[in-house]
Formats: sequence, C-alpha cells, structure tokens
Amino acid sequence: MATPLTDSDKRKQISVRGIAGLGDVSEVRKSFNRHLHFTLVKDRNVSTPRDYYFALAHTVRDHLVGRWIRTQQYYYEKDPKRIYYLSLEFYMGRTLQNTMLNLGLQHACDEAVYQLGLDMEELEEIEEDAGLGNGGLGRLAACFLDSMATLGLAAYGYGIRYEFGIFNQRIMNGWQVEEADDWLRYGNPWEKARPEFMLPVHFYGRVEQTAEGSKWVDTQIVLAMPYDTPVPGYKNNTVNTMRLWSAKAPNDFNLQEFNVGDYIEAVLDRNLAENISRVLYPNDNFFEGKELRLKQEYFVVAATLQDIIRRFKSSKFGCRDPVRTAFDSFPDKVAIQLNDTHPALAIPELMRILVDIEKLDWDKAWDVTKRTCAYTNHTVLPEALERWPVHLFEKLLPRHLQIIYAINQKHLDEVAALYPGDFDRLRRMSIIEEGDCKRINMAHLCVIGSHAVNGVARIHSEIVKNTVFKDFYDLESTKFQNKTNGITPRRWLMLCNPGLADIIAEKIGEDFVTDLSQLKKLLDFVDDESFVHDIAKVKQENKLKFSAYLEEQYKVKINPSSMFDVQVKRIHEYKRQLLNCLHIIAIYNREYYIVELYEFIV
Amino acid sequence: MATPLTDSDKRKQISVRGIAGLGDVSEVRKSFNRHLHFTLVKDRNVSTPRDYYFALAHTVRDHLVGRWIRTQQYYYEKDPKRIYYLSLEFYMGRTLQNTMLNLGLQHACDEAVYQLGLDMEELEEIEEDAGLGNGGLGRLAACFLDSMATLGLAAYGYGIRYEFGIFNQRIMNGWQVEEADDWLRYGNPWEKARPEFMLPVHFYGRVEQTAEGSKWVDTQIVLAMPYDTPVPGYKNNTVNTMRLWSAKAPNDFNLQEFNVGDYIEAVLDRNLAENISRVLYPNDNFFEGKELRLKQEYFVVAATLQDIIRRFKSSKFGCRDPVRTAFDSFPDKVAIQLNDTHPALAIPELMRILVDIEKLDWDKAWDVTKRTCAYTNHTVLPEALERWPVHLFEKLLPRHLQIIYAINQKHLDEVAALYPGDFDRLRRMSIIEEGDCKRINMAHLCVIGSHAVNGVARIHSEIVKNTVFKDFYDLESTKFQNKTNGITPRRWLMLCNPGLADIIAEKIGEDFVTDLSQLKKLLDFVDDESFVHDIAKVKQENKLKFSAYLEEQYKVKINPSSMFDVQVKRIHEYKRQLLNCLHIIAIYNREYYIVELYEFIV
Repeated sequence: MATPLTDSDKRKQISVRGIAGLGDVSEVRKSFNRHLHFTLVKDRNVSTPRDYYFALAHTVRDHLVGRWIRTQQYYYEKDPKRIYYLSLEFYMGRTLQNTMLNLGLQHACDEAVYQLGLDMEELEEIEEDAGLGNGGLGRLAACFLDSMATLGLAAYGYGIRYEFGIFNQRIMNGWQVEEADDWLRYGNPWEKARPEFMLPVHFYGRVEQTAEGSKWVDTQIVLAMPYDTPVPGYKNNTVNTMRLWSAKAPNDFNLQEFNVGDYIEAVLDRNLAENISRVLYPNDNFFEGKELRLKQEYFVVAATLQDIIRRFKSSKFGCRDPVRTAFDSFPDKVAIQLNDTHPALAIPELMRILVDIEKLDWDKAWDVTKRTCAYTNHTVLPEALERWPVHLFEKLLPRHLQIIYAINQKHLDEVAALYPGDFDRLRRMSIIEEGDCKRINMAHLCVIGSHAVNGVARIHSEIVKNTVFKDFYDLESTKFQNKTNGITPRRWLMLCNPGLADIIAEKIGEDFVTDLSQLKKLLDFVDDESFVHDIAKVKQENKLKFSAYLEEQYKVKINPSSMFDVQVKRIHEYKRQLLNCLHIIAIYNREYYIVELYEFIV
Repeated sequence: MATPLTDSDKRKQISVRGIAGLGDVSEVRKSFNRHLHFTLVKDRNVSTPRDYYFALAHTVRDHLVGRWIRTQQYYYEKDPKRIYYLSLEFYMGRTLQNTMLNLGLQHACDEAVYQLGLDMEELEEIEEDAGLGNGGLGRLAACFLDSMATLGLAAYGYGIRYEFGIFNQRIMNGWQVEEADDWLRYGNPWEKARPEFMLPVHFYGRVEQTAEGSKWVDTQIVLAMPYDTPVPGYKNNTVNTMRLWSAKAPNDFNLQEFNVGDYIEAVLDRNLAENISRVLYPNDNFFEGKELRLKQEYFVVAATLQDIIRRFKSSKFGCRDPVRTAFDSFPDKVAIQLNDTHPALAIPELMRILVDIEKLDWDKAWDVTKRTCAYTNHTVLPEALERWPVHLFEKLLPRHLQIIYAINQKHLDEVAALYPGDFDRLRRMSIIEEGDCKRINMAHLCVIGSHAVNGVARIHSEIVKNTVFKDFYDLESTKFQNKTNGITPRRWLMLCNPGLADIIAEKIGEDFVTDLSQLKKLLDFVDDESFVHDIAKVKQENKLKFSAYLEEQYKVKINPSSMFDVQVKRIHEYKRQLLNCLHIIAIYNREYYIVELYEFIV
C-alpha cells in the first residue's frame, strides 16, 4: 500500500509544508481512528479506502471548525465591508490537500497516514472533484475565494450547489460520451447544510399595482437551502464561507392547486422545482437561452440578495439607523461582484427589493444599486453573450421585466440628452434589443447597473473599451478597469509542483507563497549552477512521473527526455491550442504507424 | 426553557430508566458539546434547537456504534441462521428516546441536557418521524425488529428508504389536504449510507433462451444504495441492522441510448429511475396496481436477495462447500419472512437466481425456495389483495412471468393429481386469474411458495384457513399458523406511559419489560389500595397532561375528570371506530353549540 521510499519521504523533506511535532501526528491518528469508528461506523477489518479518505477528511475538517466559527464571529463583531462574489460556477476541485496545506497540517497528516499503513496519494485520489464549473470562469471564482481568505477579507462566494457538476468525458469509438458527474453520491464532508437559513424564491405570477406600489403576486415558490463550505486562508486562521444554494420544493408543492387527487404525481412533480439546482450547464462560451438556465440565474440571485440584506440588517452597524437611512450606507458595507452576466439579475432584483419592499424611491435605490454592484466581463464572443427573450421574462419574472424597462428608459433618456438625435446610438446602447424576438442584453444591463466594469486581461479590457462597450466607455469612461486573471500559488505551485516550490523557498524564503512578486528575487540566481541544476532535476522528476502515469493509464510509452508540451483543455473548435494538437497527431499519423493517440487529448 | 420542576425531576424518580453516575453525565455533556462544535459547526451563541437535537442524537448514536460493529462481527464469526424480514413498510417513528431507553442512557442524557439548560422534551419533538408506513403493517415490522434485537436474534429488516414517508395530513375547510413528508430534509443522524454495498437492479428487457438456460438481457439498470439503521435490543448489547434501499440512476443512465445530443434532459431523466424510492404509497388496504409500485416491490426484493446471497456465500459456513451442495443448507441459514404479499416477488426472484444464475435444477431450487420463505397475511379484504396484470409483468419482469407460469403449472399438476376432474378447484387455486385482464394473484404465489403462512390474530388466522385460502388449507394444512400481532412494551409502555411503567416495576420488578407474561403477577395486587390509588393517580396525571395539550394545540378546554376515549386512526370508511367518533360528534352537535370538533379526529 504505502510507498515510503517515494512520497512520504519526499514530503518529509519539504520545508514549506511545515514540520509536525510528534504530538500533532498522534493527535491526527487518534482523530482519524475516532472518525473511522464513530463517523464511518467501521473497524479496520472491513474499512474500504473510501472509509479511510472520509476519516481523514473529517479529521482535517475538525481543524477548520474553530477557525471558521471564530472568523465569522469576528466579522459579526467588527462589521467590516463584505465582498459578495456571485457566480454561477465555482470550479473548486478537490479540498483535502489544499486544506492540509493552508492549515499547515500536511506533514502531520502524511506522517499519521504513513504510520497507519495507508497511502496518502491513494486516499487523496478518492475525493470527488467539486467540478461546479466549465473552465476559466469557474476556476477564477475559486481562486478569488482562496486569495480573499488569504488576504483576510470578509468575502463570501455565492452560487448553486449543482447536484451534477461538469460531466465526465469518455471517448467511445472516437466520439465523446458525457457521463453524469454524481459527485455527491458518497456524501460531501466539506459542506454543512444550514437549513435554518433556507429562503423562498419566487417565480412566475403577475404584478399588481397597489397604493403602496407594485406587488409581485400569485407566484410559485421554490426554497433555497444553503450549504456552506469553508474557505481557509493560507496559514492566517481566517476561514471564509462559500454558500451554495440547493433547490427544495416546499412541502405543499403542487399538492393543492395542480394535482388534486393524484398525490403520488404531485410528490414526483417536486422534481420540477428541484431540477433548478440539478445540473451545471456545460456550455462554455455559448448562450443557449433555456428557461431552466434562467431559473438557475434568478434562483442564486434571489436567495443571495435576501441573505445579504438579512446580514446587513442584522449587523451592528445596520441596526443603529432606521432602515431608509441605513440603506445609504449599504454600498459602504456591501460589494456585489458579478462574475460575467450570469448573475446580472442581481441588479433588477436589488432594485425590486429596495423599491417594492424597502420603499426607497427609485433614484435613491438606483444610486445604492449602482454603487453596490460591479461587473466582470469574460468574453466578447457574440455567441456567448446572454440575450434573453423578453417573452421568457414576461412569464417567469414579470416584475423584473418592468424594472429592466424602467432602468432602460432612464438610461436612454440620459443618453438622448447627451447625444440628441443620435437614434442609432440609442438603439446600440439599449438594454432591449428590438427584432422578431425582443431580447434583453444582459451585458448592457450589467454595465449600466455597475460602478465598475473589468476585463480579465490587459488586451481583453482594451477590446472591451474599444469595441463591445465602446458607446458605454464614451458615456462613463472611469468605470472601465482591468483585472488580469490570477491563480492561487498555493494550489497551482505548492500543491501541483512541490519540488519546485521547495527549491524556490530554499533560495528566497516562503514569502512568495502569498506574494508572487517575490519571485523576482530569483533573478539573482540565474547563474547559480547548483540552483539551475536543481530546477532541471525537479523538472526531470516530474516528467518521469508523468511518463509513468501515461504508461499505466494509457499503455503508451514515451521518452521522458523529450520536450513535453502539455495542454489541459476541453475539445472545442475555439480552443486554438487544440488545432496545434490535431496538427501533431496528423504529423504523427503520417510519419508513424497509427496509434489511438486521441486518448492523449482527453 | 427547561421545566425542572416537572419533567426532569419526574424522570429522576423513574427507577426503570436506570440511575446515571456523575461520570456518565459529564461524558454526555462533553460529547454533546464536541458534536455541537465539530459536527454542527456551531457555538452556543448561534445554535438552534435543531442543532441541539442533532448534537444529542450524535451523542447517543456514538454509544450505539461499538455495539453495532461488535454484534455484526459476532454474527460473522458464529454464523447463526439469519432472519430476513422483508417489508415495503417500516413505521419506525422517532429513534432518540427509544435508543436512550434501550441503551440505559436516558437518565444520564436527561441530567446532562438539564445541566446544559435545555429542555429534553423540546429536543425530542424536533426529531422527524420515520413515517415509512401506513399503519399496523408497517408498525408491526418495526416492533418485530425491536423484539428480535431484544431476543438477540440475527435479524435484518429490509425495505425501501422512501424519500417521502406517509403524508402529513392537514384539514382545510373540512377537507384533508396531503402535505409531502420531507423527513430527510435536515439529514438523518440514525442512518449510515453503505455505498460499498450498492447493487444493480434490472428492469424491462427480454428473455433469451441459450444452451446454458434462460438469460434476462437488454435490461435497464437502476442502482440500489443501502442505508443502514441500527436496531438496538433492550439492554443486551445487541444492535441489529435495518437496511433500506434508495434508488440511484447509474452515471450513464439515459446518456447513451435515449437522449443523444440532449445532455441536460438526460441528466434530468435520472429522476425517472430515482422515483422508485421517492414516495411511500399511502394506500392502506387498497390495491391500486400502479407500475411504479410494482417497480418498488421488485426493487427491494432484487437488491435484498442479492445481499442475502452475498452474505450467505461469504459466510464461513457457506464457503466450505461447493455452491451447488451449499444451497442445500440455504434454508438452514436463511429465513425470509414476507410481510404481506408486497415482497412476494422474492419467490420467483429466488427461483431465478437459483436456476438461471446458480444453475440448480428446478425441483431442487423450488425445495430451497419453499423451505426459505414464509408469508404473513394481513387482510382478507378483496379490494386489498394484490392482483397484478400480466401485461405489466410482461413488460417489466418478463423472466419472472415465465417463472411464475412454471411454478403455477407444477402446482396445478399436483392439484389435478389429487382432485382429478375438479376444474373449478384448479381455477380457484391458480396463480393466474383468467379474464379480460389476465392477472397474477400474489397471495396464491405466496402461499404456494412458502412453508409457513400465518394470520395476525386468532380469528383472522381462522378466516384465512376457512375462507380465502380454504383450498390451500385442504392441500397443505400444516403450513397454516397464527401469530397474533404484538407491540414492543419498551416503546408502547415504558416510553408512552413512564408513570405506569414505574409503579408496575415497583411491584413486580423489571422483568415484564422483556416478558409481558410477568404482568400476571399484578393480579396479587388488585386489592392493594395504595397500588390502585397509584394507578389512578398516574391515569389522572396523564389526562391532565393531555387536556393541557388539547387546550394549547386546539384551544379546546375539556374536563380532565371526564372519561376519555382516545382513538388514533386515519379517517377511512372501513375503520369502524370512526363511526363511533362521528356518532359522538353528531350527538355533541345536536346537544351543544357547534365547535370545529373535526380537529379532534385528526
């Protein structure tokens, strides 16, 4: 089972992972054994590797709990500004190893698992991937959560707890076959359901005009059940929260109105409500326009905004003043970041809450909304932009449609005042696109309703200003920014390439782990022969390991001394790197005998 | 919160609940606090009563674990005969209090909860009812499990983990409105998923005749995921298992064959497979004949029989001999009790396994099956008897239909030999009922395939012999028995009426708790004035408590000195007690002003 000469020993040498005292190791063993017995209800005779993984995960989780509670209590006491990162995707991946690293527990756990006669790598492999994203957009959200926790910011990720994440890809007879990603099948030790914060989300219905303003009535209710996942910062005792919503049918769902007399059918119909959080849409950079997807977008927005406002009102700060004046301070206490247009409904939903429920006047509400929201653009591909048919809104979100119309009217009035007679500009800048099928341009809604708009790379942010949103840049140039995507060096350097992280730390210390600009210090060592040799050695070791993996998994032998060009991408026509791959295969097939090389790409 | 002058103090006096040492109490407190922190991720500032319930439930559960593991290990070592109680219903109700009682933990928990400033009754009320039954049939199954654990028998309950149990009844405008019983919403601390024992169940397909016999092929697969619930005996360190199956779609469900190109629809269609364990059919003594119900019946039978045979084969005993001879001993090692005809498919399924898979010859297989299975009849109401249309079987279970035909043929041959020319008898005794819609009489299948048949009351067992199964009694009179329904005195006397249990124990000791015949000893005290006075006092206290409950819940004041006639029944025309109730209401309405007395009945 265990391979003490390779991994465990290697890990012991890794300085940046911390050195565990004997006490820590025996504590981990004790906790592991306790969880195996009490939580997994197993003894060593009948335990499976999965039982061992769960026992270890619970052991590590126990170390998060105190920090998590204290962090949230601290936020309540100090009432700092909260950052809410709204995203339809959080591509978190696995949690165990990252948590051990951030808590400085890795060595103690390695040693304890070794002493128990188990293989850490085998246990780590059992963890299901939290694949709640398609690619860059979702992983960016996950990396931001890690960074914000490491920076000690009072940040929250808000999204959907998809029962099925990104599909598993199998290649059968040369074709992709999607397989459902049933990642929750064995239970998820990293989440905690919070039924006491369950909230209703409304759909359909109609708008009633009353003396007290507009009322959205006769709606259908779906409940949003929150599941919290801890997000630990790197060795700073901060543990933030990612809250993902799961759709639950109310207990009287369909039982009264629709299926009188067919009780069984009514209970089965609960699936219709609960389908909202069933599955991640696997469309990367393509807008499909399905009603279920619109439901998902409103579901996360409606539940999250209720939660944000509850927290704002229950904060020490928020309580002091009567609500109307308190909302003046809302943007000082709350920042809502929209990861692409997917959560764009936060803008009309916040307006609906402020105007219809909190009874603020429109202009005040609009000022609050705009100062609260900010928008990250991810793509300028026309086929990817969300343009929802108005008729879908009319049915599903009638009040939001009214509000969007009103936002658009005020916006166009402003544009018209600045550019009298420029009707083509009005058409270009409208949220509503006319045509056979009237549509709502969600990107326009986001730009108009936000105080900050950013692209995710310098060149991309320039394109944003100069092409897709040029008219908006002309109108409000100061709100346009750039925030080049980053990745967390904890997961993507220390965990992925521990050998490299070690030799860097030997030279320049460990500060680069939270401050990548420190890597500049390596410039002093470019001529340091032993350092360069160490780098080459780590690289060669990694290549050997990958070659061994390839041979084991795909029965293909490669020369580990050749140059490696590794690309981890889905197969999609807009991924240009893929063309390169296909080119390599073409050359290979032309020159040598044909092997089933397509397996390499998957 | 706590009401120390009433419940906690009263409980301290209750001798049969055991006296806890100070050490036990502080252990419970420690464990409670540990679970609140680590399992619930809460501190006392933000805990809800539900958190407290779960912390207590986990504390009590921890005391089950060691005994549960040891009991199962003991069964493995000793390999006693296993009793498998197959039932579509297990009406378990709440578990916390019963577990504390059976483990002798009640006083320690009462005291710890009191010291923590919490109210035990409030916590107990938070537990969801495991309402996986309609009434008597399901509760009988639950009481049998309790009794068998208390007797130290190696018994297992096998059923379905319905996501929704018996509906909650609300009366609106005088009509019953059903509300879904979402009992798993907050999680179930009393179950442990056992994904390593997940099993495939086949449906549909067709039968192929091959040289090696019949093969059921081209089937659709649904997975059965087991969830185990501990069943503790009364203070005997035995903890048996109730294993309930939950339907899971395989990960490739619908993804290849049906919905090529519509990935989202295919994932949502998983619901169709998983609907099998979604909801308990609420039909009490009425046969509806729905396909989904037939799927449920086969689902539990197919998963359970695979599990039984796996356990038989992996037992020390079963391993010794080659399989063919080993199955001779199957009925010595395995008893399958069919709770009504709902799991009747166990008979043709066992035949299918023995003949098609284990390659036993038919007569040997039939002998094994008959000696293994026994059948409990619950009703002679014609409208309640299961008579499945043959065309449903043809589609859903084609191989089982063939097997049932073959069983029937051999059976009718025997009858014809004994009663030559008595064609009417053949018609009456056939498993297959001819007519416009050919049907399978499941009760006939059960009687023919079992070595024992029992009714559940003396008079009922007589009716069984003399009317519904008279022809079968004439054929095999020795297999007919009576087993009058009992209820466990732990739950229904000690927990429901602790005051009465106490004064009984004071007089005759505690043995009556596991041996109700001991109650005869009370005859010595019928003239004991102080004893009779104590009985009356307990009765009056209970009436006072119930009056207070009525006033609080329904705002109805009653005189606690009047005679109480309490009936807990669903409203159904065949419940004769109901007529009495309606009569009372009629008199009441005639004599007094009209109150909404119907609330009393619900």
